Amino acid sequence: MHTSQQSNPRLFAFVAGDQGFWKIDRTLAVMGEPISAASRLSIFSGAVPVQGAGFAWALRGTASNERYVLHEEKAQLVSKQEGLGRPAARCAALIPIRKTAAWWALPQDVRRKIFEDQSHHIAIGMNYLPAVARRLHHCRDLESAEPFDFLTWFEFNKSDEPSFDELLATLRVTEEWAFVDREVEMRLSQGGD
Amino acid sequence: MHTSQQSNPRLFAFVAGDQGFWKIDRTLAVMGEPISAASRLSIFSGAVPVQGAGFAWALRGTASNERYVLHEEKAQLVSKQEGLGRPAARCAALIPIRKTAAWWALPQDVRRKIFEDQSHHIAIGMNYLPAVARRLHHCRDLESAEPFDFLTWFEFNKSDEPSFDELLATLRVTEEWAFVDREVEMRLSQGGD
Repeated sequence: MHTSQQSNPRLFAFVAGDQGFWKIDRTLAVMGEPISAASRLSIFSGAVPVQGAGFAWALRGTASNERYVLHEEKAQLVSKQEGLGRPAARCAALIPIRKTAAWWALPQDVRRKIFEDQSHHIAIGMNYLPAVARRLHHCRDLESAEPFDFLTWFEFNKSDEPSFDELLATLRVTEEWAFVDREVEMRLSQGGD
Repeated sequence: MHTSQQSNPRLFAFVAGDQGFWKIDRTLAVMGEPISAASRLSIFSGAVPVQGAGFAWALRGTASNERYVLHEEKAQLVSKQEGLGRPAARCAALIPIRKTAAWWALPQDVRRKIFEDQSHHIAIGMNYLPAVARRLHHCRDLESAEPFDFLTWFEFNKSDEPSFDELLATLRVTEEWAFVDREVEMRLSQGGD
């Protein structure tokens, strides 16, 4: 069945191994089980080519509709944010996260309260726009059992790396992060090794 | 990649053809493109077996977390609703729906307002509990490009069929339904033909 079907146009795959456009500078297990280290990462849109020698792992997710962002917040985000692929943004991070079953059992309004009213996730992120560009991928509703619920991909200039470190540190002490039970952080850069 | 991976435990596949536990009594294109008629339907949990002769189509979706239900609404739903598989509930319906791109571009609060404050989707459904049991499946974030965004499966007693007809008629005139651009309705029953 899979082979005869077209891929979701919003599907992205992060494939690690010994080849790829992005160099993986370091891989950190922030919480829970680590992920195998690899030296390079490719990002594919749509279907993933068959993997050959040197393949380490692949993580997949779909860019989807927003789950928490309100009307006024969306207008602010749209006016401030920049897209991926800016030539000067040669640093990147891939942060796969899994949340607990308790989080997923919460109704929408309770999740929103923790996410924004208590943890200020959107407001914190807004402080780092337009320096940090991002794309969020959802993994929880794929056909396959995935090791993470979300994959977030970030791109920024080398000079904005300290700001990005601060952004991560700020989010990780929020109430929302009490519901994160697995988190991995990969830092990447473009170009030769 | 697919073959080596476990299925999402919340994935369900509705497979139509000339075999299956459920008899398809009628198939109606409510809005947009119709779906091929078939005589029987099977529901698989997890991976779908390779299809043989007599296969017509398969629709897949994952049972996921709630997107709009608030705390008090969830408590009410949980106290009133009954599960699938009740022996007397020998009638069923499968209703695949697709919503417009405009719907998906709306922020969370605007979608919630249309869904409940204006269309009373949850309140309307509540009126038909516990008679009508249901499971909602999301298709939009699967790996493959799917023809629908949602598949809802309903089960009820034969004597509750007029109530179920009323439920559908009530929902279809709401503001929310202005964002539905494809809808198919299949009615099914258990047992011989």
